[in-house]
This record gives sequence, structure tokens and C-alpha cells, in this order.
Amino acid sequence: MEQNKNLNNDTIIALATSSGVGAIAVIRLSGSKSIEIVNRFFKSKFGDKDLNRVKTHTIHLGNIIENNRILDEVLVSVFKDPHSYTGENVVEISCHGSVYIQQEILQLFLKQGVRNADAGEFTLRAFINGKMDLSQAEAVADLIASDSKASHQIALQQMRGGFSSEIAALREQLLNFASLIELELDFAEEDVEFADRKQFQELISRITFVLKRLIDSFAVGNVLKNGIPVAIVGEPNVGKSTLLNSLLNEEKAIVSEIAGTTRDAIEDEIIINGVAYRFIDTAGIRQTKDVVESIGIQKTFEKIEQAQLVIYVIDAAQVVQDNSTLQQLKETVKKIHEQFPHKKLIIIANKIDLVNEVDFKQNMANSLKEDYENLILLSAKNKKGLETLIQNLTNLANMGSLSNNETIVSNSRHFEALNNALNSIIEVQKGVDAEISSDLFAIDIREALHHLGLITGEITTEDLLGNIFANFCIGK
Amino acid sequence: MEQNKNLNNDTIIALATSSGVGAIAVIRLSGSKSIEIVNRFFKSKFGDKDLNRVKTHTIHLGNIIENNRILDEVLVSVFKDPHSYTGENVVEISCHGSVYIQQEILQLFLKQGVRNADAGEFTLRAFINGKMDLSQAEAVADLIASDSKASHQIALQQMRGGFSSEIAALREQLLNFASLIELELDFAEEDVEFADRKQFQELISRITFVLKRLIDSFAVGNVLKNGIPVAIVGEPNVGKSTLLNSLLNEEKAIVSEIAGTTRDAIEDEIIINGVAYRFIDTAGIRQTKDVVESIGIQKTFEKIEQAQLVIYVIDAAQVVQDNSTLQQLKETVKKIHEQFPHKKLIIIANKIDLVNEVDFKQNMANSLKEDYENLILLSAKNKKGLETLIQNLTNLANMGSLSNNETIVSNSRHFEALNNALNSIIEVQKGVDAEISSDLFAIDIREALHHLGLITGEITTEDLLGNIFANFCIGK
Repeated sequence: MEQNKNLNNDTIIALATSSGVGAIAVIRLSGSKSIEIVNRFFKSKFGDKDLNRVKTHTIHLGNIIENNRILDEVLVSVFKDPHSYTGENVVEISCHGSVYIQQEILQLFLKQGVRNADAGEFTLRAFINGKMDLSQAEAVADLIASDSKASHQIALQQMRGGFSSEIAALREQLLNFASLIELELDFAEEDVEFADRKQFQELISRITFVLKRLIDSFAVGNVLKNGIPVAIVGEPNVGKSTLLNSLLNEEKAIVSEIAGTTRDAIEDEIIINGVAYRFIDTAGIRQTKDVVESIGIQKTFEKIEQAQLVIYVIDAAQVVQDNSTLQQLKETVKKIHEQFPHKKLIIIANKIDLVNEVDFKQNMANSLKEDYENLILLSAKNKKGLETLIQNLTNLANMGSLSNNETIVSNSRHFEALNNALNSIIEVQKGVDAEISSDLFAIDIREALHHLGLITGEITTEDLLGNIFANFCIGK
Repeated sequence: MEQNKNLNNDTIIALATSSGVGAIAVIRLSGSKSIEIVNRFFKSKFGDKDLNRVKTHTIHLGNIIENNRILDEVLVSVFKDPHSYTGENVVEISCHGSVYIQQEILQLFLKQGVRNADAGEFTLRAFINGKMDLSQAEAVADLIASDSKASHQIALQQMRGGFSSEIAALREQLLNFASLIELELDFAEEDVEFADRKQFQELISRITFVLKRLIDSFAVGNVLKNGIPVAIVGEPNVGKSTLLNSLLNEEKAIVSEIAGTTRDAIEDEIIINGVAYRFIDTAGIRQTKDVVESIGIQKTFEKIEQAQLVIYVIDAAQVVQDNSTLQQLKETVKKIHEQFPHKKLIIIANKIDLVNEVDFKQNMANSLKEDYENLILLSAKNKKGLETLIQNLTNLANMGSLSNNETIVSNSRHFEALNNALNSIIEVQKGVDAEISSDLFAIDIREALHHLGLITGEITTEDLLGNIFANFCIGK
């Protein structure tokens, strides 16, 4: 840990619970003087009690008093350095949940020179004081933001150490070899080899294997964290928005509003069986005409480009009435397969209540051939076929289903660092394979060490920390 | 206490912090089995730990685990019967503040047969278990709803016992006399007097004195709790809404939105120096024409009827240009004094920047005579005179300024009970004065005992408790 534990020895304060009126609110202070400062304004209900002398992890009932005026009756929780979240002395004041009272208590301590905590500053201190590594700290923000079973699971796993302990261990072994190889360079003229080349080879292979596995997990991890992007396409009036609304109204689906800065358009997110599905540009579907034939296939394909899963909606009644509709469907499906061979496609024949189902099935089976298996007959109006659609979506999502033990990377910063580390390691491997002089690949080892260190926070820059903790909420 | 401590021995659960995303959230359980139930799903970070065996008021770090799946890393606070808020075993789970996690944990315990707490049910249990009397319990809800220094102070004072301990003591003395007098009735034929008439007289006087003082305090208490109702009246375009906006923009003023069920119109509330001012029907001022001369004085007077303080705004420039304006002001002011002799009036001459201030003052002093002292020259546009207005408002509010020791009644239920008790006591007094037979005023004593008991909760009905606790938020 490069940072000094006493880098920040001032005391910080923030409301830790969500703002607004509740039964209670929790105000958190951290810093070596936090207990002493709170003690000055705390009067126990049970005679004189000095919070400086109580045991860690104990709770005390009393009043917060400013100039003989009681601000509130509170519970004070005391956590002593190093047995606290931040590793410093921490006090949590559980007060009545009026905004007025919260403000009065915050103001009281701000007047004592306690400082408003920056976003994520409690967790930053936890990191600085060695209570968690950087990837664990990042997971805390993810955990708070988690809105589905999958994103919650990934964040929790990462917070518990996840892959970063594995990375840290491999990095340490690599660091040992690096020292030996650097040592060889000092004795270059004597042509000695301190580092056992066979063991080194094994380590490089192991690192390569681990890095590749983690990098591969990112696609799944990213999907599970951010949701599966789904494009719903089709001509106007085939029932795309009705379908979306039916999904929204299904009991199993939970809608969550996305108000993010990372996504540029308003999207509908539906959580089904613990996995989030992001419906791309559905605002657009609702407002604008999305005519495949008239505007051309271009716009549809732009939408598919961003998606991982394509739901193509057709109007069953229209297909029966007008044979050209079916012809066009076949052509478009063919083009989608050609241009996006890896995207999953679901074809939904909506308004099935308006046609003869048996005839329709027969017709579609003959026309779509191998794509017939992707067809779902549905009536958004009558909620028929919705269960099948939900089952299909869930099956598709389960490709990346998570167990508690699987390590999954979902953070794009980590993904980038892992890729950079892998590239350096591949260079090292090449050098070792070519039996070139160790001074030529020593630089690549240093590069790899650097990138691996960025993940766990063994190497940090102020910018990096600033970026990471700015995304936290205040009070954490 | 008529209630049985074991009336509710099921376990209840609720989110105690405000809903929404925060750094942390607190989930509270209460009931004899709450510790045991949480213990089943809690795994300490530090080896095996049985929450059933830990000390009260201690905090424990660990995971909440359901079927080997970690729901969250949490801090668990344990409070043991009777040393808790409710007087029962209480567990508070401090989890990460994601709505998803809050729901997962709540669902986990609901599946174990724990029940969602009703609004105010934790406090209801505290009352039933004798941790607080009814007026203290009611103060908890007021405290959470408090949005100004004054309302906060009243609620806190009431929660700390306030006047209810005094009422309880007087009621007990009255109860003793009542027993003696009832005893006399049993021995009516022997004409004995167990109850010392002189002491009884003294007690009746003391009770009368206390009740009158408390009843008188209600007017002030109600104003301080709910804000001072202010009517801003005047012709259109004299600058009423500009004035309101200027007050809103002053640094000292905090605006709070009222979304109450007790008030039927949207009102602007401005808190100045700790006291709330409710501007009556200001939504109306902004939208509708409020022409004193054309629609007549009726509407203005309806508004004044509801207010405690009247701000009459005139346009200084208009007064200078058109002498009839001043004449009309004089007449209206006269009518206000006649019809509402006790309402405080402030006359504001707005747009003073547009006229010669010295001439204007002279003119107004001559015309308004004794009302001149109520005049404030103001320019809402230039923020001139606002300080004077704020000072005047604060002086008016300070008529009821609060010290920590003053007892003030602000609850209309208490006000009603105190009035009823006083009426009965007056009847008792009459009876004693007339030296009538004690069986004739025994019924009045019982009445008084009943009403006093309603305040502290020594006498309750299911309806009464239902009404009181329905106004609480869930989780308290």
C-alpha cells in the first residue's frame, strides 16, 4: 500500500441513509477524533457515560445536546480503529428521520470542524487503510447500485475478494521473478540465470490462462451487470409496444427506471427472473414510425447492431392477408443471419388470436424452415404466448448463469487492465519462447505488473482514485 | 396499563430508513423471536457467533445467507427485552442501501412468518409495553414530521414526557379522592366524609389552573407546530407574488412543500428563523385575479378569516398617481380592524423604488395615522425593506417563543381532552362550592378522570389507538 494511513486525519461526516423522511436516519462520522467529538455533545440516558471509554461495536441511548438544547434522542454506535468499515474510529448516529433533525445534527458537527464527506470517501478511507483492495471498493458502489439478482451477485462476489485475490497472488509471484530477472540484468556479463526458466514458463502459462478466462467472462459479466440489450423490431402497428407493456405487466417482471449517465437514451429495463433486459430505443419505437420496407432496412440494422438479442415482431393477420409480408420477413431474417451470425433471434407472430392457428403454423413451418424454431405465436392482447417468450428469454440469459464460485469480471476498467496485462504477458511469452535475452522482455514483465496492480490498487494514481470514487454516493 | 404485554407476540419487520437508494439502509425487527430468527440466517465474520447469546446493545459484522447464497454483508444490532425501543427483543440490520438488497432481506424474513409492521406499530408496541405513554408516542410521529425549529422543539419536549407526566400525577391524586368519595357514597346513610374537603378543594384548584394554562398554550402550540397562517391580500399587480418569491429567495428562508391530508389547498410554507409561515391560498393569488374593488371585499375577508396575520400589499406608485387608492386602503384597513380586532396587520407599500420616498412617507403618515406604524416601505424588486419585513414577522412569532421548559400543547386531540376535562372539573368545583351531596359530582369526577386518562393513554380504545398510529410512517 503506497498510501499513508494518516493521509487524512480529519473527521468526515455524511448522511448514510437515503435522504428524505423515514422512521430513522443514520449519520456517519469517521476519523481519529470522531468518537471524542460526538462524546462532547452526547448525554447518555443512564448517567454519565464517556463514549471514549466504551467498547467497540456497542450502542448507546442518549440525547444530542447543543447549548442545553436537545436536538434529538438518538442511538450512538461506536466502532473503534481498526475494527470499523473505514479502519478509523467511526460513530453512527441513528436519529429520528426528520430532514430538519438530520440537518441540525449535521450542522452541529460541521461547526466543530468536521468536514462533509466527499462521494465514496468512507470507502476510499477503507481502501487507504487496507480494509479492502481497490476492486473490492469498486464493488461496494456496484452493490449499492445493483437492481437485479445477477448484478447483485457479481458485485457481492467481487466485494468478497472475487478474482482480485487471485490476481494479487499471481502478481506477487510474477514480481518475484521480475526481481530475479532484474538481478540477472545487473550481472548480465556473467550470463547467470537466477530465475528458473521452467518455473517461470509455468507461471506465465498460468497467468495467461487466468487472464484469458477472466477476459472471456467479461462479455457475460457485462451483460449480467448492465442487462441484456434487446432490439424489438418490426413494422408499425404489429404490436411492439403492446408486447412491451404486456411484459411490463407480467407479475414476474419488475420495471426499473434507468437514469444513468453512461447510457445516452432513455431505455426500458425489465427484470425477469433476476436478469435485466434493456429494450433499446423503445422510446423511439413508440414515437416514430419504424417502417422496415419504406425507410429501408438500415435503421433496423442499426438497432440490431447494439443488441445482443433481436425480437422481430410480425402481425399474424397481416401475413395471412398479404403474402408479400411473409416474403419480406424471410428476406430480412436472412439478412440478419448474414450480417449478425451470432445474434440470437426470436420471431414473434403477434395477434395470433385473429387467425386460424393451425393453418398459420403450417404456413410458417413451410416458409421459415430452420427459423421456425425461433417462432413464438403470441397474442399480447390476450396474454397468450407470453409465458413461452419469458421462458425463452430466461433460457438465453442462463448461458451466463452465475454460481457463487464462478469468477466474473464486469467492470470495464478491470477488463481493460486485464487485456493490457495479457498483451504484455504474450510479449513475455514470445521472448521466453525465442530464448531472447531477458533484458528484452523485462520491460514487458514490468508492464504486466503495472496493469495487474491497477486492478487491486497496489498501483494507483490520484486520477484513478478520483474517477472511481466520484461514482459513489455520498455517505459510503 | 390495561394492555397485556404479550398481546402481540409475533415478530414484525419494516424498513426503518427512508425508501430509496442510500449508502446504507436499516431493516428493523421486533418481537420475542426476532433475535432467534435473524440468527438462523446470520453468519458472523469472526467464527461462529450465536446472536442469542450476545449482550444487548452490541453490533455484529457478518453475512445474511439464504440457502448458501449471500444476500449481503451487514451489521446486526441486537437489543434485548426490555432494553429496546419497543421493550421487546429488537434487531436492526444495517445493509447496503440498494433497493434490491432491502427487498431480498425483507422477503427472506417474511418467508419465515415475520409480518410486515403496520404504520407506527413499533411505537404502538413501545406504548403497550409501557416504554412511553400515549402522548409521548404521538410526539414521535410529530418529531419525524417536524420541519422547523419550533415544531421540532414542541415534539421533542412532548416526547420527553412534557406535560403528560404532570397530567398523570394530577390524575392519580384525583383518582385517590374519587375512591374516597365513592367510598362515602357506599356509606351515604352514615354521612361520613373520608375525603378531606379542604385538600380536595386545593387539588381541584390546582387541576383547574394547570388545565387552563395548557389549554391557553394550544393557540401558540398549534401555530408553532403548523406554522403561522398569513394572508397576503391586495389588488392585482401590486407585487404580491414577487414579494413571496423574494421571501423565498432570502437566504434565511427555507421553503418546504406541504403534502398533507389535513390541509385542503396547496400552500406555500416559508421557514424564517425557525418558525414556519403558511401563506394561505397563494396558489390562488398567482392564478386568479384577486380584485378587492371589483369582486368586493368578501373574498379578501374570507382569506383573512383563516389567517392569524394579514399582509396588505399596495403599489406605492399607484397611491401617488391615484388618490382614490389611498382612500380605499384606509377604508379596507378600517373594516379589517372592525371585523378582526385581534389579527395583526402589516401594510406593505411595494414598488417604493418608483416614488419619492420622503414625500410618500409624509403622505402615508398623514393618511394612515395610527396604522402608520404597521407600514413597511418595500421594493421586492430591489430587495429593499425585506429585512424589516422579516424582522417584523419574527417579532410577531416570538410572542410564543419556546424555552425548553415551557409546556405547550400542540395536539388537537389533547386540546379536546383537556377542554373536556376542564368542563368536568368546573362542574365538580360548582358542586363542591354549593356543598351539594358528593354523589352528584362523583360522576363529573369520573368524567374528568376519563378525559385526563385519554391523554396519557391510561384509558384507550381500539379506535383511538388506530387513529393515532395510522398517522405514523411504516418502520416507526
